[in-house]
Amino acid sequence: MYKYLNSINSSADLKQLSPSQLPVYCEEVRHYILHSLAGGTGHIGSSLGAVELAVALHYVFDTPDDRIIWDVGHQAYAHKIITGRRDEFPGLRTAEGIGGFPRRSESPYDAFVGGHASVSISAALGMATASQLIGEERKTVAVIGDGAMTGGLAFEGLNNAGTVGADLLVILNDNHMAIDHNRSALKEYLLGISTSKRYNRLKTRVWRMFPAGSRLHNAFKRIKNAFKQGLLRHSNLFESFKFRYFGPVDGNDVVSLVAVLSDLREIKGPKLLHTITTKGKGFAQAEQDPVLWHAPGKYNPETGEVIRSKSDADKFQDVFGQTLVDLACQDSRIVGVTPAMPTGCSMDLLAKAMPDRYFDVGIAEGHAVTFSAGLACEGLVPFCNIYSTYMQRAYDNVIHDVALQGLGVVMCLDRGGLVGEDGATHHGAYDMAYMSCVPGLTIAAPYDEVELRNMMYTASQAGSPWVIRYPRGTGRGAEWRNRPFESVEVGRGRRLRKGERVAVLSIGAVGIAASQAVERAVAEGANPAHYDMRWVKPLDEQILREVVGGEFERVVTVEDGSLIGGVGQNIEIRLHEMGWNGKVVRLGIPDRFIEHGTPAELHAECNIDVDSITRAILAE
Amino acid sequence: MYKYLNSINSSADLKQLSPSQLPVYCEEVRHYILHSLAGGTGHIGSSLGAVELAVALHYVFDTPDDRIIWDVGHQAYAHKIITGRRDEFPGLRTAEGIGGFPRRSESPYDAFVGGHASVSISAALGMATASQLIGEERKTVAVIGDGAMTGGLAFEGLNNAGTVGADLLVILNDNHMAIDHNRSALKEYLLGISTSKRYNRLKTRVWRMFPAGSRLHNAFKRIKNAFKQGLLRHSNLFESFKFRYFGPVDGNDVVSLVAVLSDLREIKGPKLLHTITTKGKGFAQAEQDPVLWHAPGKYNPETGEVIRSKSDADKFQDVFGQTLVDLACQDSRIVGVTPAMPTGCSMDLLAKAMPDRYFDVGIAEGHAVTFSAGLACEGLVPFCNIYSTYMQRAYDNVIHDVALQGLGVVMCLDRGGLVGEDGATHHGAYDMAYMSCVPGLTIAAPYDEVELRNMMYTASQAGSPWVIRYPRGTGRGAEWRNRPFESVEVGRGRRLRKGERVAVLSIGAVGIAASQAVERAVAEGANPAHYDMRWVKPLDEQILREVVGGEFERVVTVEDGSLIGGVGQNIEIRLHEMGWNGKVVRLGIPDRFIEHGTPAELHAECNIDVDSITRAILAE
Repeated sequence: MYKYLNSINSSADLKQLSPSQLPVYCEEVRHYILHSLAGGTGHIGSSLGAVELAVALHYVFDTPDDRIIWDVGHQAYAHKIITGRRDEFPGLRTAEGIGGFPRRSESPYDAFVGGHASVSISAALGMATASQLIGEERKTVAVIGDGAMTGGLAFEGLNNAGTVGADLLVILNDNHMAIDHNRSALKEYLLGISTSKRYNRLKTRVWRMFPAGSRLHNAFKRIKNAFKQGLLRHSNLFESFKFRYFGPVDGNDVVSLVAVLSDLREIKGPKLLHTITTKGKGFAQAEQDPVLWHAPGKYNPETGEVIRSKSDADKFQDVFGQTLVDLACQDSRIVGVTPAMPTGCSMDLLAKAMPDRYFDVGIAEGHAVTFSAGLACEGLVPFCNIYSTYMQRAYDNVIHDVALQGLGVVMCLDRGGLVGEDGATHHGAYDMAYMSCVPGLTIAAPYDEVELRNMMYTASQAGSPWVIRYPRGTGRGAEWRNRPFESVEVGRGRRLRKGERVAVLSIGAVGIAASQAVERAVAEGANPAHYDMRWVKPLDEQILREVVGGEFERVVTVEDGSLIGGVGQNIEIRLHEMGWNGKVVRLGIPDRFIEHGTPAELHAECNIDVDSITRAILAE
Repeated sequence: MYKYLNSINSSADLKQLSPSQLPVYCEEVRHYILHSLAGGTGHIGSSLGAVELAVALHYVFDTPDDRIIWDVGHQAYAHKIITGRRDEFPGLRTAEGIGGFPRRSESPYDAFVGGHASVSISAALGMATASQLIGEERKTVAVIGDGAMTGGLAFEGLNNAGTVGADLLVILNDNHMAIDHNRSALKEYLLGISTSKRYNRLKTRVWRMFPAGSRLHNAFKRIKNAFKQGLLRHSNLFESFKFRYFGPVDGNDVVSLVAVLSDLREIKGPKLLHTITTKGKGFAQAEQDPVLWHAPGKYNPETGEVIRSKSDADKFQDVFGQTLVDLACQDSRIVGVTPAMPTGCSMDLLAKAMPDRYFDVGIAEGHAVTFSAGLACEGLVPFCNIYSTYMQRAYDNVIHDVALQGLGVVMCLDRGGLVGEDGATHHGAYDMAYMSCVPGLTIAAPYDEVELRNMMYTASQAGSPWVIRYPRGTGRGAEWRNRPFESVEVGRGRRLRKGERVAVLSIGAVGIAASQAVERAVAEGANPAHYDMRWVKPLDEQILREVVGGEFERVVTVEDGSLIGGVGQNIEIRLHEMGWNGKVVRLGIPDRFIEHGTPAELHAECNIDVDSITRAILAE
């Protein structure tokens, strides 16, 4: 069926093809991606758009000795297929399979991890600098999307790379046309000029003619820049950072890409190639609706029909999105802030309902938090929604800009806990630990949909820094829509079940699993108590006193976060301080990085699934 | 003695002066700063350079209703003097006095905290956006140094502000250096702009010819922009972000500044004024040696002589700096990375000794860590030194780029614990808590100079992610120079004293105070044991078993970090798990923000000074 696909397992294999054979190979890779991932586990849009980039890069460069850093890894599916992981590819993001992002542990071709955005230029600069220092001749290439380019880290990298004049190629994979909306004949013409061999040959020749620093050399540089300025309006953004700018070129034209990259390979110093690609390229439905096809779930690769899975319960994300709109209707101070995740966190509902009170600030988590702090200074009540794993990027903003000033920002941590298929880079494992030590934060973790809704309401009234942390996915199917808002008392949890001998103290939505485990244990004749702690901070001292005063031999704490620094630890400390010397069994995420798999598999691995919690309750 | 100084306590008072009186007032403010801070507690250089900026801003804008956000607060001393804090100013940064940075809790004129760099644009954008949404007419101004401008957060702010077209004035206070003379592409680019005198003279003249808002003025503006592009090669950096760029102008010419700001006040939308100021302006010694005069300590304000305090012991910083050079001499893989703090952390020694193995990446902590990760990928051993409080800005880089990949980056956290006069924004209080939960990190905290030296040596051999955390200031005067390196066993602490009834378990250099407390307690007839835990992670289980097996009723843990998530908590948990049910007294930084004061005062406040530890040992 495939002409070339199955014979290519490396950069060296790829070089056996002639350039004119590459378009066919690209189509095969694209077809293979589409048919391998129809089961629903992949990120389709960016992968399809970056097929030609991956093929051209491995064709022109000598990987793995030359380094390619993908920022972020959604772009890198073709890269995985080319570099010996074709047969494993259909198992992508499954517990037994390869990961969704580049991983150094997975392949020598994966030069750097690519889970979080905007890291590639900094990492590539480190590699290029080291290679130069060691005296190893190799090329280093960072491939960064236009979205990732808005992250501050990318600018820090650009600024530093330009300063030291590192030998580094940055490829801007621009699939949103975010930098240039207007495509014009002039521009493409100019593109041709700035990437053509003739232009660069001329430039290189002239540079060589005159020693650096000479008057003529400088005069020539001025002429060249003036010439380019006349033609390319925005080229100076990157040139301000002392990068030589080339482009834009069609990033889905593999033959042209090979020609351009072959030229650029020979040019020393920091340089940026601006490529325009189409997200979802080659698959009509994905090209037409790139948001849906970013990660569409199950689909039919022949018809392009997306197969929606039936779900009995709403997602926590649905609750967040709708509740924010409901609250904003009642309270004109409430606004929403998201760093480029409106669909993922469902803030798109607010965007539609009240566009002027909705702020998508781009991939820029630190800015999202500090911007929210500024909004709060003037009396607004910003709900700033950031995935737990990305909040790690705004940690200082939380401490220095929000908590220290006691500002009323409601920080909603979506996807707290184990996220499943995205794996080690994306689990929201550390949030409860790293937030707990920050003074002045109120940290809530809702048990279910109704709790999330009421905690959001309570936070909107608080006027102080709040964190509300909840997981990816569905709750327990509680009826939450159109419920009147109820205030939740800060620092007061709930007793879900009276009992004896064993007390289960759970925090957040993993408490639903704990409830099921308690039911099972009851069915087996045990009589455990169950408390929903509700608050990571402040802890409910009253519940703890009730436990200390009760007939309990063991306490089982359950959390879907890091055991080190987690809620269980704080509970154990307090119980100990209260003079209770029973046994505390703490269930949570252990002190190692958890890889990818289904959420169910990962919860089992961490002993926070129903079975494990049941065993912990029943164990003597 | 002063003509105007004592009568001005607000923006409104200042407006009573005529523009021609402002230069005299500026000189008075400058004189007052210099004479108030001779006792040694202030940041001189930036303050002197920004006097005219502060005066002009409060003269032109209606503060506090208009918002001025200072990034960072070292610039804001004149601002404090103008806005009602003249008489308190000599007590700056003392326990009873006002803080060194703008603080919302201190004055309505302090629109936002200014401790960490690069936050102003994001905060100002939040305020401007909120004011617009609420319908309040006010101006918002961010004043940001060229050093702070290299932080990624500043670019995230610029990018977002330009996108939404916010009504916002950013003043780039360009004194051509951060704290040290670091290199940056941005800096060189700004320098290029500022050298065009012809352009500036012309522009100022034409502005004055036409009243603001007039047709001719506007026509000129259009011409000017076209003209400027021809003259100023790189002006498009800010214009790429859709900011209107004005400047550069002389930021120490208060009369011109007033004229320019009055014009800019009337121009809507995002705009940036590039001002050139002289660090240390008006004080010859400070102008000539801006690095020394950033924060010179005690000096004679008449002669400019810096009065060096005699110290018996070397600082931990001296040990770090020299040891890094010593190690680098032995091991060609070792390199140094600093985000613009070479003098503060003493990496300037490496810069002098081996400039090609030293990397100052500018104020860009996230990049510093990810760049180091890239270096480690190619086999180098980077020592990346970041102040503990600033490491909060690179938290995700530590997790995602270093720890997850198991890369051999040695992250040295300088100024861990209570830093003293810089206050709440700068204490390194949370590092042990937020690092402990990250898998795969080895976290060391040296007791004294020799330990720091040997831990650095051990880390250089490890090939895995390390954190070494030590405080600001002097150690115990241990002889460390020219000592042969010794490997320290990971996870093995030391017993410093055998004893009974009470066991003191200290971590890091606060253990020196613990040792003194133990001696005092012995003098009072007690017989406490003392263990130096050495490792935040992994904990020394052998010591804990020794404690459990010993004749102890009480354990006193001592750390100069957050009690929540700290080492004491981890110790208590493990002792409990080992079945020990004695009393654990945990000393450390409590769950609130600690303000400024001398380190001694703050240690006493947190009960980790010798007196408090002694009391804890002796208490029944």
